[in-house]
Amino acid sequence: MLHLQRETEDGWVERALDAMPEILLDHAHCEKKAASTAVNLIFKYPQHVALMRPLSELAREELEHFEQVLTVMESRGLEYKRQRPSPYAGKLMTIVRSTEPDRLLDTLLCCALIEARSCERMKILAARLEDPQLEDLYTSLLACEARHHRMYVDLAEAIFAPSDVAVRLAEVSAHEAAVIDDAPLEPRLHNR
Amino acid sequence: MLHLQRETEDGWVERALDAMPEILLDHAHCEKKAASTAVNLIFKYPQHVALMRPLSELAREELEHFEQVLTVMESRGLEYKRQRPSPYAGKLMTIVRSTEPDRLLDTLLCCALIEARSCERMKILAARLEDPQLEDLYTSLLACEARHHRMYVDLAEAIFAPSDVAVRLAEVSAHEAAVIDDAPLEPRLHNR
Repeated sequence: MLHLQRETEDGWVERALDAMPEILLDHAHCEKKAASTAVNLIFKYPQHVALMRPLSELAREELEHFEQVLTVMESRGLEYKRQRPSPYAGKLMTIVRSTEPDRLLDTLLCCALIEARSCERMKILAARLEDPQLEDLYTSLLACEARHHRMYVDLAEAIFAPSDVAVRLAEVSAHEAAVIDDAPLEPRLHNR
Repeated sequence: MLHLQRETEDGWVERALDAMPEILLDHAHCEKKAASTAVNLIFKYPQHVALMRPLSELAREELEHFEQVLTVMESRGLEYKRQRPSPYAGKLMTIVRSTEPDRLLDTLLCCALIEARSCERMKILAARLEDPQLEDLYTSLLACEARHHRMYVDLAEAIFAPSDVAVRLAEVSAHEAAVIDDAPLEPRLHNR
């Protein structure tokens, strides 16, 4: 249950398969960004002790994935370098309200939906990839993304009333669908 | 070989042993900060591919230590919370030059010296602690801190001429000694 309101269009995977070097580079940056977001939440919310260990474990796992993607890139002669990021995460985060505790709830749910979209996309990729190395990579990672999605929702429910979390999750998820609909066509994990 | 120019004064360990709850809380924050610094370097210097994996591995290890310290704190009924940080790292970093590539060299060497000072302090603590849980914690971690010190110096030498690294390391280390001399008496890993 990924709480996504819009399925990825068929065209995305065709564009992604034609541009796997860009997708891998984007993926490396996404794992790095996911680790950094978790570390930033640890800094921002020390008063929520229940968040500290799960976020630290998650950050470690994202960094391990970052290293895994670097290894795959190196084995294929692909260079890790700067890349213009997809506007997805930035646009998604515009729904985050500026006052606490709304800000924390919204941030956790945005993180949950980024993980959900990653999971959905990796599943689509894994089903179509014919390269065994890449198929293995995405098959192994998509399960982690699903787990991370669940973890962010669980953390929200540990702090906020589950009924409030459900209402807001539906709103953030509707916004996520609109962001994906409007994403550019450039090949990225979270573009159109 | 920790490249420290000033040994810690005897008084520090007496003050630390009298305030282990504050030291443990400060230590948790220090591990978290060390992880975040490594992640920030990954973001800032993607063009230095040789830094990516070692920094990612280091960040994972720092996060694991953060979790270890949280476990020790929980087992002792100590609450993880915000704490006014020691001015040490901020004052140390004032030596970092603002233009590249000097900025990168100086940052790597400041990180190396923070690890070195942590190692020295943990060794002093481990030798004096009578509580087996804390003695084990600091004995196991001090070896990691020494390894991290070496790693930061090695990374500097992978990018810059080793002779330039040696000259600058002596300068940054002299500055570090002055910062420690001038640190406040409040019990922290990197205070006086």
